[in-house]
Amino acid sequence: MADPLWPYCTPGIPDDRFERLPGIPMTELEVRMLILAQLRLRPDAVLWDIGAGTGTIPVEVGQLCPGGQIVAIERDEEVAGLIRRNCQRFGVKNVSVVEGSAPDCLGAIAAPSGGSLVDRSLPDCILIEGGQPLQDVLRSAWDYTRPGGRIVATTSSLEGLYAISEFLAELQARDIEVVQSAINRLQRRGIRQSFSAVNPTFILSGEKG
Amino acid sequence: MADPLWPYCTPGIPDDRFERLPGIPMTELEVRMLILAQLRLRPDAVLWDIGAGTGTIPVEVGQLCPGGQIVAIERDEEVAGLIRRNCQRFGVKNVSVVEGSAPDCLGAIAAPSGGSLVDRSLPDCILIEGGQPLQDVLRSAWDYTRPGGRIVATTSSLEGLYAISEFLAELQARDIEVVQSAINRLQRRGIRQSFSAVNPTFILSGEKG
Amino acid sequence: MADPLWPYCTPGIPDDRFERLPGIPMTELEVRMLILAQLRLRPDAVLWDIGAGTGTIPVEVGQLCPGGQIVAIERDEEVAGLIRRNCQRFGVKNVSVVEGSAPDCLGAIAAPSGGSLVDRSLPDCILIEGGQPLQDVLRSAWDYTRPGGRIVATTSSLEGLYAISEFLAELQARDIEVVQSAINRLQRRGIRQSFSAVNPTFILSGEKG
Amino acid sequence: MADPLWPYCTPGIPDDRFERLPGIPMTELEVRMLILAQLRLRPDAVLWDIGAGTGTIPVEVGQLCPGGQIVAIERDEEVAGLIRRNCQRFGVKNVSVVEGSAPDCLGAIAAPSGGSLVDRSLPDCILIEGGQPLQDVLRSAWDYTRPGGRIVATTSSLEGLYAISEFLAELQARDIEVVQSAINRLQRRGIRQSFSAVNPTFILSGEKG
Repeated sequence: MADPLWPYCTPGIPDDRFERLPGIPMTELEVRMLILAQLRLRPDAVLWDIGAGTGTIPVEVGQLCPGGQIVAIERDEEVAGLIRRNCQRFGVKNVSVVEGSAPDCLGAIAAPSGGSLVDRSLPDCILIEGGQPLQDVLRSAWDYTRPGGRIVATTSSLEGLYAISEFLAELQARDIEVVQSAINRLQRRGIRQSFSAVNPTFILSGEKG
Repeated sequence: MADPLWPYCTPGIPDDRFERLPGIPMTELEVRMLILAQLRLRPDAVLWDIGAGTGTIPVEVGQLCPGGQIVAIERDEEVAGLIRRNCQRFGVKNVSVVEGSAPDCLGAIAAPSGGSLVDRSLPDCILIEGGQPLQDVLRSAWDYTRPGGRIVATTSSLEGLYAISEFLAELQARDIEVVQSAINRLQRRGIRQSFSAVNPTFILSGEKG
Repeated sequence: MADPLWPYCTPGIPDDRFERLPGIPMTELEVRMLILAQLRLRPDAVLWDIGAGTGTIPVEVGQLCPGGQIVAIERDEEVAGLIRRNCQRFGVKNVSVVEGSAPDCLGAIAAPSGGSLVDRSLPDCILIEGGQPLQDVLRSAWDYTRPGGRIVATTSSLEGLYAISEFLAELQARDIEVVQSAINRLQRRGIRQSFSAVNPTFILSGEKG
Repeated sequence: MADPLWPYCTPGIPDDRFERLPGIPMTELEVRMLILAQLRLRPDAVLWDIGAGTGTIPVEVGQLCPGGQIVAIERDEEVAGLIRRNCQRFGVKNVSVVEGSAPDCLGAIAAPSGGSLVDRSLPDCILIEGGQPLQDVLRSAWDYTRPGGRIVATTSSLEGLYAISEFLAELQARDIEVVQSAINRLQRRGIRQSFSAVNPTFILSGEKG
């Protein structure tokens, strides 16, 4: 049997190992690691990833928590296919990709009327990387999160930083944390190696009391 | 039985969960995550951590890779005790703490003359967070690393950045990567929340051909 | 005659050339430069600096615009004295230090009933580095700014970033800009030189239509 | 008479006010401010700018020091023309643009055999933004700098950081400073405002004893 593509028990898959589609955002390695640090998933945890993009978080979490369940939610059919292919590529089997628009589709995920989702239950953690309008996504995500569970949200916009931060304060989330990543990578350009910046991302998190 | 202190399968233990000693450096959460991303440890990997400080990396790796072996190397007896206590605190059992000065002590670790270290073998990865002089530590570390294994080194100094970068180039390490972390954390000061910067750290890595 | 302390026509006075008081904030060199870039002062401009702290901006602006008028507003008597001494130190003569609490004291500055302030007029630019409550300071500052003039405000807090950004948008300021500085300085620690981060500051600016 | 394009006595010309050519580097506003802070030019100073690119530094310095002389050195004819046009655009008259390759052309600039350069003398400050090979440029620049004068050099590469830092240490430059800028700008993308990073630049400086 061939060696799996990521045979390691530590996360940190390089960006270029994933299949990509032009224009589809990818959570870059360094930001991905900072997100992982906020998820705090138990071995049997249920994670919903709203706006999963290229699927890097589902793949990493699928490998770190083989006994967990990850639901990747993407409204775009083509992107949903990309997430599925990236999961296959890394041999990750505990990710369900749901095509739908958050927050509308969340109810059906939480209370599936039979089928392969029947054993799914309320999430221990919801990661919000997309969805419109953000306030509604946040509100629904909060409602569906299990008590004691966590909300983690990323944004690179000022409006997003506002909305998420105010929302977590208003809902009286516990242990609210805000981290801004500003990573520089040394990259080869011709014969020179120059530092270039990975665009800054804010990662916010809090716990439902 | 009490819930373990970190019952999660994702890394990212908050800094304040560790026991600390005044003046002993600790690899802060965000930098720790970026280091973890470079280790690429297989389930049975052997990791040497030179200059392990508070022991945050041994604890996180011990949990991520329960089948691996971690050797934490610290010359200071008191700090070695701190690492042991932090491993106990988190229920991590696959970390051996060696009191010794790198590079001198590395030979004895690689070829132990009996005792509990007898089953130890050449490391798959060496993480260099300390040791003097740096050039000698790098050279020895490289020699002991298994072919195909990795060297990961951190520094916040210009001299360190030079020495490590030149060393990796000279030894023709493969896939050399240099990342500079520059994280801002939102921290409460009285009634206000201000962004403060985690001091920048360079993380360099490369593979032995 | 002795050489003046800063005989240069370029700004950029090193932090350690200023007299300091413990606990009194100082706008560090790099942040100061980014603030200067937003002021856009004509040779005869009037600048109000609310919460001038150590007085680094009044000193630099006083030298760059010898024909301008700078009003440094500080509620603390001791700090006001510090600003005066720093202006003397650098031979800057076009700074008036007003002891008072913004926004309450602004009216008296705008319309002085005689005395040495008689020739003062509405400011071309107001720099807001302090004052409480921020919303009221912003509102008053906006009202006093001459049409076509500018508001520049600095903050390191999330609340401040919110308040200033929303305020500028609501008042329909033109050319709103938000810059976040994240500077690393190489500093000598013993025999090593390490990079350390200057805490991040947001600088917001906009023009009154 | 029309208002000049930059009627202000404070530096900080927005990037989009300059004429640009595709592929020609421009020193962005925030980095430019940090460079200006290191130049320390007296009113009658002579500045050489090696690798002046778009000419933003000559324009800003030309305005800050109307009694100074700036020599902008560019080997590319088309770029030299761009610098001249940007100087004209801002009404800056004290910049001479020299077409030539540093370090070879520096001797002719220092000791011109008649002509319009006759009154030129050794520079008080040399700013190195380009030139090949870097070591030779540094060496020549150091030789031509007046005693007590300054060298300021920028780089975004690791090799450049090495070379400049070692050079300044070896030559025993005084007051060596290394600053790394890492600026984030809030930029409008459609209806959202996202933070994006200006690529990090190292600015090194030192004084000739």
